[in-house]
Amino acid sequence: MGQVTLSGKGRRWVLGGHPWIYRDDIAGGEAEPGELLHVEDPNGNSIGWGLFSASSKIAVRLVTSDKAQPKREFWVERVGRAIKAREAMGYLNPEGACRLIAGDADRLPGWIVDLYGRTAVVQSSIQATDRMRDFLVELLEEALPFELETIVDRSDSSVRRFEDLDTRVETLKGEVRDSLVVSEVGLEYEVDVLGGHKTGHYLDQRVNRIRAADLNRGGRVLDAFSYDGLFGIRAALAGASEVICLDQSSSAGERLLRNAERNGVAAKVKFEKVNCMQELRNRLEAGETYDLVVVDPPAFARNRREIKGAERGYVEVNRRAMGLVNPGGLLVSASCSYNVRQPDFVQFLGSASRLAARDVWLEEMRGAAPDHPALLALPESNYLKCAFLRVP
Amino acid sequence: MGQVTLSGKGRRWVLGGHPWIYRDDIAGGEAEPGELLHVEDPNGNSIGWGLFSASSKIAVRLVTSDKAQPKREFWVERVGRAIKAREAMGYLNPEGACRLIAGDADRLPGWIVDLYGRTAVVQSSIQATDRMRDFLVELLEEALPFELETIVDRSDSSVRRFEDLDTRVETLKGEVRDSLVVSEVGLEYEVDVLGGHKTGHYLDQRVNRIRAADLNRGGRVLDAFSYDGLFGIRAALAGASEVICLDQSSSAGERLLRNAERNGVAAKVKFEKVNCMQELRNRLEAGETYDLVVVDPPAFARNRREIKGAERGYVEVNRRAMGLVNPGGLLVSASCSYNVRQPDFVQFLGSASRLAARDVWLEEMRGAAPDHPALLALPESNYLKCAFLRVP
Repeated sequence: MGQVTLSGKGRRWVLGGHPWIYRDDIAGGEAEPGELLHVEDPNGNSIGWGLFSASSKIAVRLVTSDKAQPKREFWVERVGRAIKAREAMGYLNPEGACRLIAGDADRLPGWIVDLYGRTAVVQSSIQATDRMRDFLVELLEEALPFELETIVDRSDSSVRRFEDLDTRVETLKGEVRDSLVVSEVGLEYEVDVLGGHKTGHYLDQRVNRIRAADLNRGGRVLDAFSYDGLFGIRAALAGASEVICLDQSSSAGERLLRNAERNGVAAKVKFEKVNCMQELRNRLEAGETYDLVVVDPPAFARNRREIKGAERGYVEVNRRAMGLVNPGGLLVSASCSYNVRQPDFVQFLGSASRLAARDVWLEEMRGAAPDHPALLALPESNYLKCAFLRVP
Repeated sequence: MGQVTLSGKGRRWVLGGHPWIYRDDIAGGEAEPGELLHVEDPNGNSIGWGLFSASSKIAVRLVTSDKAQPKREFWVERVGRAIKAREAMGYLNPEGACRLIAGDADRLPGWIVDLYGRTAVVQSSIQATDRMRDFLVELLEEALPFELETIVDRSDSSVRRFEDLDTRVETLKGEVRDSLVVSEVGLEYEVDVLGGHKTGHYLDQRVNRIRAADLNRGGRVLDAFSYDGLFGIRAALAGASEVICLDQSSSAGERLLRNAERNGVAAKVKFEKVNCMQELRNRLEAGETYDLVVVDPPAFARNRREIKGAERGYVEVNRRAMGLVNPGGLLVSASCSYNVRQPDFVQFLGSASRLAARDVWLEEMRGAAPDHPALLALPESNYLKCAFLRVP
């Protein structure tokens, strides 16, 4: 049985409420990679139990402050709580899609489960969840109120390198359908669970897409960094007169056009394979304007050191986008880098509005969909910022 | 004609985009109290035009960076833009209520206009808008697509003391009805434009009340610091089984009960005149729980110096409130002090969750309704924080 003792500083950090223990804050002890271990303070008092990593800077992820060692029932309860919460949100149905388990925010560190119809995609990102994978999959199947057809292990995130773990994509149950289609509040779309970004889809933007489409209705739409185009297709479904989607990926573009077709809006939705930053400038110089502009670029800052460059990127992309909005229109501008905190992002948007010489109102600052919870104790779980900006 | 010259530091501040010029940043010049004046940089280049205060620390509020002096048409355009934006939001109707002009955020510093049916309540908070009052009222009447019955000047905000201005409440047109009732998305409520808080009502929470009610539906509700009870009454209308409203004001309580009656939910809505902080503790100790708890206290910090005390207040009120939420239930927790910035507030909520020993998810961080815009260039306009917290 593993055990570690915290330093005085480590003890204060943990009592402050954050569930991650950094290697520097550990004074002694021993555990195997990925083991469940007991955490003690410098006086030998119990702090709780956590999951150990032998490689990452985050040495332990606390799972409970109870003295008693977590047994099977503990994990059953955790998985059950996560699933029950999604059920209460109205997201648990065998045709839809949702994030069923969101790692740390569900107090199941390193373990993500996304549900696409009857296909579950699991993702392990730490040593402990690699070790517990088959057990956690078993609990998942037990807890779900319906049978899964397919289970895929998409443990190929780049964060696994911090844990000295290789990446893998494995089908654990059944077979992946050639065309996996899910439906979500009046929209149907394809998901590529083996090759698409993340577990196959950007589930976190689901609610924001609906909101943007509702606010726009009849206008012209420009969806930049569109990936598979669901901001644009949603807008088309809600009555947009014309939707132009821009992305650099032709495979995403093909899926986008099939999605538009599937939802009966192919006539209104166009895709262009372009460099989005350049294309925004071209359209600005051409004097084009839209009633809704969406910019949802990839993370510009993958760590805190990249933030200066990220600032330039976010200011420039938003300056161009603001210039493309009709008076009274809307800009939906997202940042998915955790390292760009919300106040930073609001400041970047402010700089962009000054450079664009436009008054801009921050109408709503939204985050990820509710099934990607932001746990108060863990600011790192609050990563997505999606600003709804009105240009009066 | 007034004119001021900025210091070098003042020039850099203004070019950074913020529309307020502090007295310390002015190197010279002269103007009458409340005058429209020309702003120049240290080299005599035009920076734009602003409204002068002879008393406040904020000496000038810029209204334009144009070189040309604003004339009548300029103000017509400003008032028109504000009203057009509310029309686009769907808020402009002679039975409803909205903030028609939101001061600085509409680039009409010091000037607020709230509309309650055909009654407009105007509020001037600086020397310049006192001087321009009759002109601005004239432009308001010209721009509105319907006739106003009543215009009230509710210039009795305490911020007027910074401008060396007395307070006043005057009826400028018509008469104030004994019972002024407005309707808002299926809800009718009384507004006390002469004696109620602000201009008679907390218009800024309108959308948040609808959102909270929609998320709750059938559950039991506790609405603390309820004022005239519209969070609770909204929740009752949306199907809440029982609603308890707590407030220390008996006049607000009487209006609350009349509002409940008017909306046909009197049987489900109770009011208790209590000290809310104390009552939350009593109910926690009695082991009571609710599916939706709302805490919307008065501002705990009226300036940056009061923030330590405000922290204690917010942590304590939210700790108690979190303890009162059923698993899976919702806490809606607001802070209307600008001085408590959003990251501060999220941190206070985190401390509260630790002390309450509950996992808490920040589901949405909402602000004021869209007719109370938060101008990116003016962080001060982003004052309301309304956290939607899920206790899984």
